[in-house]
Amino acid sequence: MNRSPLENKPLPPEDRVGYALVGLGKLTLNELVPAFRLSNCSKLTALVSDDREKALEIARGLGLEEKDVYDYADYDRLAERPDVNAVYIVLPNALHREYTERAARIGKHVLCEKPLATSPEDAETMVRACAEANRLLMTAYRMQYTPQLWAARDLIEKGDLGRLKFIEAVDGQTEDDPGAWRLKRDLAGGGALPDIGLYCLNTARFLTGEEPYEVFAYQYSTPGDERFKEVEEAVYWTMRFPSGAVAHCTCSYDVAEAKYLRAHGQKGWLSLDPAFSYEGLRLEVVTEEGREVRQMREEDQFRLEIDHFSECILGGKRPFTPGEEGVQDQRLMAAIYQSAAEGKPVRVERLEGKDLFRGAPPRRG
Amino acid sequence: MNRSPLENKPLPPEDRVGYALVGLGKLTLNELVPAFRLSNCSKLTALVSDDREKALEIARGLGLEEKDVYDYADYDRLAERPDVNAVYIVLPNALHREYTERAARIGKHVLCEKPLATSPEDAETMVRACAEANRLLMTAYRMQYTPQLWAARDLIEKGDLGRLKFIEAVDGQTEDDPGAWRLKRDLAGGGALPDIGLYCLNTARFLTGEEPYEVFAYQYSTPGDERFKEVEEAVYWTMRFPSGAVAHCTCSYDVAEAKYLRAHGQKGWLSLDPAFSYEGLRLEVVTEEGREVRQMREEDQFRLEIDHFSECILGGKRPFTPGEEGVQDQRLMAAIYQSAAEGKPVRVERLEGKDLFRGAPPRRG
Amino acid sequence: MNRSPLENKPLPPEDRVGYALVGLGKLTLNELVPAFRLSNCSKLTALVSDDREKALEIARGLGLEEKDVYDYADYDRLAERPDVNAVYIVLPNALHREYTERAARIGKHVLCEKPLATSPEDAETMVRACAEANRLLMTAYRMQYTPQLWAARDLIEKGDLGRLKFIEAVDGQTEDDPGAWRLKRDLAGGGALPDIGLYCLNTARFLTGEEPYEVFAYQYSTPGDERFKEVEEAVYWTMRFPSGAVAHCTCSYDVAEAKYLRAHGQKGWLSLDPAFSYEGLRLEVVTEEGREVRQMREEDQFRLEIDHFSECILGGKRPFTPGEEGVQDQRLMAAIYQSAAEGKPVRVERLEGKDLFRGAPPRRG
Amino acid sequence: MNRSPLENKPLPPEDRVGYALVGLGKLTLNELVPAFRLSNCSKLTALVSDDREKALEIARGLGLEEKDVYDYADYDRLAERPDVNAVYIVLPNALHREYTERAARIGKHVLCEKPLATSPEDAETMVRACAEANRLLMTAYRMQYTPQLWAARDLIEKGDLGRLKFIEAVDGQTEDDPGAWRLKRDLAGGGALPDIGLYCLNTARFLTGEEPYEVFAYQYSTPGDERFKEVEEAVYWTMRFPSGAVAHCTCSYDVAEAKYLRAHGQKGWLSLDPAFSYEGLRLEVVTEEGREVRQMREEDQFRLEIDHFSECILGGKRPFTPGEEGVQDQRLMAAIYQSAAEGKPVRVERLEGKDLFRGAPPRRG
Repeated sequence: MNRSPLENKPLPPEDRVGYALVGLGKLTLNELVPAFRLSNCSKLTALVSDDREKALEIARGLGLEEKDVYDYADYDRLAERPDVNAVYIVLPNALHREYTERAARIGKHVLCEKPLATSPEDAETMVRACAEANRLLMTAYRMQYTPQLWAARDLIEKGDLGRLKFIEAVDGQTEDDPGAWRLKRDLAGGGALPDIGLYCLNTARFLTGEEPYEVFAYQYSTPGDERFKEVEEAVYWTMRFPSGAVAHCTCSYDVAEAKYLRAHGQKGWLSLDPAFSYEGLRLEVVTEEGREVRQMREEDQFRLEIDHFSECILGGKRPFTPGEEGVQDQRLMAAIYQSAAEGKPVRVERLEGKDLFRGAPPRRG
Repeated sequence: MNRSPLENKPLPPEDRVGYALVGLGKLTLNELVPAFRLSNCSKLTALVSDDREKALEIARGLGLEEKDVYDYADYDRLAERPDVNAVYIVLPNALHREYTERAARIGKHVLCEKPLATSPEDAETMVRACAEANRLLMTAYRMQYTPQLWAARDLIEKGDLGRLKFIEAVDGQTEDDPGAWRLKRDLAGGGALPDIGLYCLNTARFLTGEEPYEVFAYQYSTPGDERFKEVEEAVYWTMRFPSGAVAHCTCSYDVAEAKYLRAHGQKGWLSLDPAFSYEGLRLEVVTEEGREVRQMREEDQFRLEIDHFSECILGGKRPFTPGEEGVQDQRLMAAIYQSAAEGKPVRVERLEGKDLFRGAPPRRG
Repeated sequence: MNRSPLENKPLPPEDRVGYALVGLGKLTLNELVPAFRLSNCSKLTALVSDDREKALEIARGLGLEEKDVYDYADYDRLAERPDVNAVYIVLPNALHREYTERAARIGKHVLCEKPLATSPEDAETMVRACAEANRLLMTAYRMQYTPQLWAARDLIEKGDLGRLKFIEAVDGQTEDDPGAWRLKRDLAGGGALPDIGLYCLNTARFLTGEEPYEVFAYQYSTPGDERFKEVEEAVYWTMRFPSGAVAHCTCSYDVAEAKYLRAHGQKGWLSLDPAFSYEGLRLEVVTEEGREVRQMREEDQFRLEIDHFSECILGGKRPFTPGEEGVQDQRLMAAIYQSAAEGKPVRVERLEGKDLFRGAPPRRG
Repeated sequence: MNRSPLENKPLPPEDRVGYALVGLGKLTLNELVPAFRLSNCSKLTALVSDDREKALEIARGLGLEEKDVYDYADYDRLAERPDVNAVYIVLPNALHREYTERAARIGKHVLCEKPLATSPEDAETMVRACAEANRLLMTAYRMQYTPQLWAARDLIEKGDLGRLKFIEAVDGQTEDDPGAWRLKRDLAGGGALPDIGLYCLNTARFLTGEEPYEVFAYQYSTPGDERFKEVEEAVYWTMRFPSGAVAHCTCSYDVAEAKYLRAHGQKGWLSLDPAFSYEGLRLEVVTEEGREVRQMREEDQFRLEIDHFSECILGGKRPFTPGEEGVQDQRLMAAIYQSAAEGKPVRVERLEGKDLFRGAPPRRG
């Protein structure tokens, strides 16, 4: 490569990092495929799915060929493909571990959808597997690559809001398909918490740069609602951070869509509303100087995330949201469930320091 | 009286309920005096204060005379004033009980600022004192008389939001006067909770019509901050209601002003932002049909509250927010403090039913 | 008087300027009577109406007596009332002249609703009549007394928006009562233009401080609409100011309510939306530093206006919006109608200078 | 082709319409190249530019080769390229005619940036040239392909706003590069009007579906401002439509960015704010039922426009915004300039009927 990917110009296709997309659900079709089309240093070179018909159709639209379409049994044959440098795993949560381990074994870097796994132990195993194979593992926390969240973090860091005191975060939507894998415990590992509550958890950690040391949670499922027989409908929790800041978080699978976050400081506050959506993130800042909406060019969040990983691969850097970042969230989610089950606050290890589990910050626009 | 006060026309001055305003602080001067000027069935006939100079000046602007100005020692002499039917107590919280009891003894109805008292026991005593004297006691919960909150409650009641699932409420501001009586335990009885957190608590109860049966709370004061040596800076708490609904509430004396509430249901949600301010309450409703701001004529909140009490006095009705409504909030605040102190959830008596402590609803515009 | 009315404290009733309200329509009942209740240096001492029943009822609510109620035939007997220092004329436009002249003759100051008259000639006559009687005449342009419009004007004056280039102003509403006097030419003198279009005209002049020298207008009435047989439904006009600034203005009696104004400069712009309503004026400013809503305490606009006039009477000052300010608008409205009739631009005298027709600026909050 | 492009699925690259992009300015780089990356039935197969270095670099990022890069002298050699079905002309306005005629001669369809030309005569010539060559010509009016504008048009058409009465449209920005070709008369043909004012004009025509029959305009350039020696800084104009509706339009090259449009009807109104930007179009609707923001998935406007043209080419349909649509705008702009020059209204042919110059409506999402 004779050109730095850092110039924000598209690399020639032959210089880009090649990916196999593993799993062809709605997220892949509606978000990831368009993101790859817009990417600067990434390209799709293979698809993995058991729905060969669908996979072939998508492949055709992308200019790929029959040979680029794999099924899950074939997966390990990606080893033979030098133009597949990494896999992007978009499978039900419970399969993340297996497909990460297999990818590491055949020498591929791994970008894995969130949540990283269905338990802290699985997540740790995945980190180890990639480390031993000397491959990069990144948790696909798209939010941590958005200009809006970085602008929010900068505001807090620079002290524009004064000392941060508390965060309110809500991620609610309606899960109305009783057959969805997200409602099966053995596939999803949990309900609203790992799917959407994780955004509240992860964003609160990102904005503060801190790690919570205590959580208290209520969990709720409407009695008799068939959808929530295996996994929870909603979790309401509170987290305490070493600085004294507190976060109230709420996730629910049975409310009209609502996704917002507010961070309150001594001298001002900021609102992200909507906060966790794929597009249209809106940052508003209220200080003594008034109320201001920060207008930003809309960026494809998934493109930013994928290109960050490609840049790390090309440049040999640790991703900003590596496997370890996902492991920490798994530990905290386990503590949240434990608190809800025991009816009392649960302490986790108290860690001081900033961005303890994160790698190289993403390039700023 | 030959005219119903229900027609929303000003009564002739001689037919109105006469009040003595007890305490001439900022709230009295900036809000209550103008509210009385606008009222339809209430009038100011006396002022009680130890700052005679100030009291006389205000009296002059109102067209009152020297004889209409009392000091606290004189208070019981209001007995001799047939044109003083009620007192409006605007004193530090710890004095509410004494001045209510004395008023009841001399045969006056009592409109008492919130919080009703500094303990459930005191509040209960006040209720008893007024009952025994056959006088009305009303807690001055102005929010419960606003068209915006009633519109919000109607939406929930009619099911426009579907089943209500959770409420997020924040009331934060900066208390920067270290000498304020609100920061003295013996005068205020507590810090941010009884002063501003009470709005979150009380409004959540009003909107649901329900009584919480369990609370969990964190309490926080910045180490070393002189302002919060006696009372707390902030309380973060969660409440569970019999219907399954949950409320996250936050109050803080050390953040940039932020007052909002959101109530989330299966089919929609509503936002009050600002939620607890004296004016400019803004109700926004989000349902499948879109996002809509409900425009309403601005009404003076204190006038609505005062005239409600006057109508109850004229018509012999129990106020919508009687003493009992204040007592219940005192019990819940005691439970919140207990939870914060013990580090675990605290249960209170589980009560089923709607508006258990409320009287006749206020007249609607 | 031993106390300056400038301290924003209520004067004792006996020191205030006494007014007779002339005309008891909706504006009087809903806006002016409450405004007098809130005023600091004004008081209502008499009512003038031919509906004695209604007048007496209002009087009773105000604590006035039978003797304080006059009919139009009686009007000149106000001469005998030393406690009536001024009249506030709230009659159909065509009567403004007569009641102003009669008031001047009996030695009363005159606050006259807008538009000042139904022709430039009548308006000039009114100015002369008051001047000769050595009485003050003020056009009741409430907008020019609002903190929001002053904040907007300050922004422009200080150059925060850079050089002002153009203004867009719309005042539209539905006039659906075919019997309204506003739709009768002989009472109103015109249709949407003098009633609501005048706000666009007058506010553009206020914000720039300039006088337009050319206008071009289209006038429109829906064919066959009975409401607009005598007066126009809508006027669309453009004005050019000496500085080069241009204003597009629109008024209509047949659209859903819409009242806004935007002023655009080289470096930023401001929006008033709503712009001309009795309450809830909202000022938003967009500059390089962002988009900001200026939050202001809601003030009763009519109180500000009335108290300004009272202060002028007490202090012997020329009002900020004297009769001459109203005369100039009459001249411009005449030019607008002429342009619409002739189908070409109409020039008026080109005047250079700032605030050429205005008096002492109102006291700022 | 065995698959309809109407299913909104990407066609295999070999089935797509191939384009040569002619002109590599900022619009091409920032908007058009990404749009092609996202397109479903279009692909870039050649670039035309005199800056060979830059063109090669872009080509590399796109996976194109040296042979795919042409200079303007080479342009006619595109005739030899069967994989170039159409050209997209993104050159200074004055060159549109020549490059359209040459394209038609070599058998290519033409998508031409707006304004179509620098005079009605040139525009008509272009239409004829393409018709004679039996090639399609489309004016690149991206706004007419956005979901937001179609939603606005639907609202008006269905009568949700009642009868439409007037439109206010503003398109202002700062043109601060004195060397820009947009400020040269011989390249641009005009100043703010054909560049940005055209959006106001064209959108007003699109929303009403009507053709104006009379215009009145003021034109303005700040005296002494070097930027506006050849072309105008701003135009303020008014248009009358056969239905009685009126539009006030404003365009300016010397104000802080402001792009909005409001359409007012008897029963409601709609706001597009921002209105003409490349992204973030925001449609708000105000009716008796409240105020509602219509949330829509952000779509790449240029992709919609380009794919519409490709679908027309593939399906043999007349584009929604063919050359004739551009011709009509040229005629109206000529009338606007004439009005400003003569200082009086100018009439154009009065045309009745809907969408008189438009072809097949674009596919709706």
